[in-house]
Amino acid sequence: MTRVGRRSEPLPALMAEAALAALADAGVETPDAIVVATMNPEEFVGDGNFASHVATHMGFADVPALRIETATSSGAAAFYAGVAQVAAGLRRTVLVVGGEKMTHLPTPRVSEIIGRSIDPYERRYGATMPALAGLVTRALMTLGGVNAREIAQVAVKNHANGARNPFAHFQQPVSLEEVLDSRMVADPLRLMHCCPISDGAAAVVLNPERGAVRVAGIGHGADTLAVRHRRELTSFVATKAAAREAYAQAGFGPERIDVAELHDAFAPFELMSLEDLGLLPPGKAGRATLDGDTALDGRLPINPSGGLKARGHPLAATGLAQIVECVWQLTGRAAGRQVAGASCALAHSIGGLATNNWVTVLERA
Amino acid sequence: MTRVGRRSEPLPALMAEAALAALADAGVETPDAIVVATMNPEEFVGDGNFASHVATHMGFADVPALRIETATSSGAAAFYAGVAQVAAGLRRTVLVVGGEKMTHLPTPRVSEIIGRSIDPYERRYGATMPALAGLVTRALMTLGGVNAREIAQVAVKNHANGARNPFAHFQQPVSLEEVLDSRMVADPLRLMHCCPISDGAAAVVLNPERGAVRVAGIGHGADTLAVRHRRELTSFVATKAAAREAYAQAGFGPERIDVAELHDAFAPFELMSLEDLGLLPPGKAGRATLDGDTALDGRLPINPSGGLKARGHPLAATGLAQIVECVWQLTGRAAGRQVAGASCALAHSIGGLATNNWVTVLERA
Repeated sequence: MTRVGRRSEPLPALMAEAALAALADAGVETPDAIVVATMNPEEFVGDGNFASHVATHMGFADVPALRIETATSSGAAAFYAGVAQVAAGLRRTVLVVGGEKMTHLPTPRVSEIIGRSIDPYERRYGATMPALAGLVTRALMTLGGVNAREIAQVAVKNHANGARNPFAHFQQPVSLEEVLDSRMVADPLRLMHCCPISDGAAAVVLNPERGAVRVAGIGHGADTLAVRHRRELTSFVATKAAAREAYAQAGFGPERIDVAELHDAFAPFELMSLEDLGLLPPGKAGRATLDGDTALDGRLPINPSGGLKARGHPLAATGLAQIVECVWQLTGRAAGRQVAGASCALAHSIGGLATNNWVTVLERA
Repeated sequence: MTRVGRRSEPLPALMAEAALAALADAGVETPDAIVVATMNPEEFVGDGNFASHVATHMGFADVPALRIETATSSGAAAFYAGVAQVAAGLRRTVLVVGGEKMTHLPTPRVSEIIGRSIDPYERRYGATMPALAGLVTRALMTLGGVNAREIAQVAVKNHANGARNPFAHFQQPVSLEEVLDSRMVADPLRLMHCCPISDGAAAVVLNPERGAVRVAGIGHGADTLAVRHRRELTSFVATKAAAREAYAQAGFGPERIDVAELHDAFAPFELMSLEDLGLLPPGKAGRATLDGDTALDGRLPINPSGGLKARGHPLAATGLAQIVECVWQLTGRAAGRQVAGASCALAHSIGGLATNNWVTVLERA
């Protein structure tokens, strides 16, 4: 993957950087096929037909390439599509590469583009992603018994991890006070509860032979586009469904997971996801986070990369960046943030406001 | 599929109409997964996260859905992605649905949106799809020995077929003179050489059991995004590569094809594709078309649906509409345009200016 952050290179160059690094790492010269993940290159950078665009830019004009999109979880979806091609025997070696370039646009325009993922009726009332996440957070605090310090600690922990990750957007620790004192964005969400707007790319090479890491299971879960049509706000059914499917395929459950990358676009989402994924019992995630259980040296390290909060969230790159981090953790290459002896890792990606979520379980082979 | 044309319904409604018809036809109540094809819903209709959007609109909010895009061949790409999921054993019953809504926008805006598929450097010099297709047509006439009457006859034939298709955008025949006298769009391409701007949707249901029609092979071919980087203009290498792969999977070649749906976004493309696909020998497509060999009652009926020219070209719907027509032809349900005894059909879809092409071969089971 590339370093995430404010990057001056054009998007195809970022994606090529990640892709060529992944191919070199895998010892592959030319893949048989390419799966490209970008959320909305037409509006973010003005170019479409992006699979052909990126493949040509990388020097693979004659390699078949297609694009996958499931909003902010597009990277995870592309990984699934690549796995399906390999598992079907249609392709042997598939390059999966995702990326996004956003920092060159004014924030209101980025917000408008990301807002297209929201139910149009709710959008018409002014709903933005942070506004809907604010609603969810309020429900979590009122009905779920989570408190402000527990939520803030997610950001503190993830910044501490990001400070150890040379690929992270933010590499500075933050204190609980800084998070709690940061400016309000969408009550009760403050600036330091929210992931940044980032540029970056990440890539993975798949093949059917036994490698260092094996895909144990992939699950895909869905929910209503409209938040108002949901039965509850304190849990994401799309995460639960994706986890059920991934664990069923893997043949084991959350008890085997040593380390996980979760979709903390908003800090409270990490707490919800810990419980939705069965990694912690209902109602326990906030306390466990304050107690350090999910810290790098805790019982169950979560987001060693820094997560979306500190590594950054270049949309369609994110699902793949999570998988890259898992692979590095499983193969002992996570340098200053290595979780000792990790043999099973989980990546969890949220598309839109949890309409299209993915859970990928990876094992050391 | 829906009737193609100027439709007043919103895009999700068109896609639901096609999808629910396909599910009813297949006797399936709820699919296990959905693959959605739209080329650029963000700019055409202002909404993103479109897989979740469409799934929710159809009443399948809890069915996992993802979106595929390869510019104007997105429908064919989605079909491939669905086949990969089923062939991999990841899903049993997959609904593939594609659609586009464009007629509500002014033509220059549609042209701008479609133009994002063109290499940015060439676009900066004013290249549009018709302009590039005009270049290709000029090369075909100068170097390929194709004449104006041969090219015009493609449109005449496809309008004659469209007149027999209740789903077609245009259901009126046109004369050779009308085509040759229509206004110039991009010299030597005239208005009646070009497909219309259309709204519409099409859908297919896949499952691993033996049905009425079987997927014999799917090929995917790629070429440089930039037209100036190509070795020749009178042939599309992406079509040739896709055909090679599809025939290799099928275990037979073009000699077995009884009927085909080809991507005649511009009339001369049908002549090029006939030869690129090996359906006719090099240099013979123009004469054969004038002689009526590719007419509905000819030796090798091409575009019985009316093709992109007369059935219309609702972008991401098109690749699936071609497959729907093939299925109807193979199962004797093409009513007034039935090709007698068709047992093997081919669909050919072009993405962008032939950067991302697909060939699908279908057989009566």
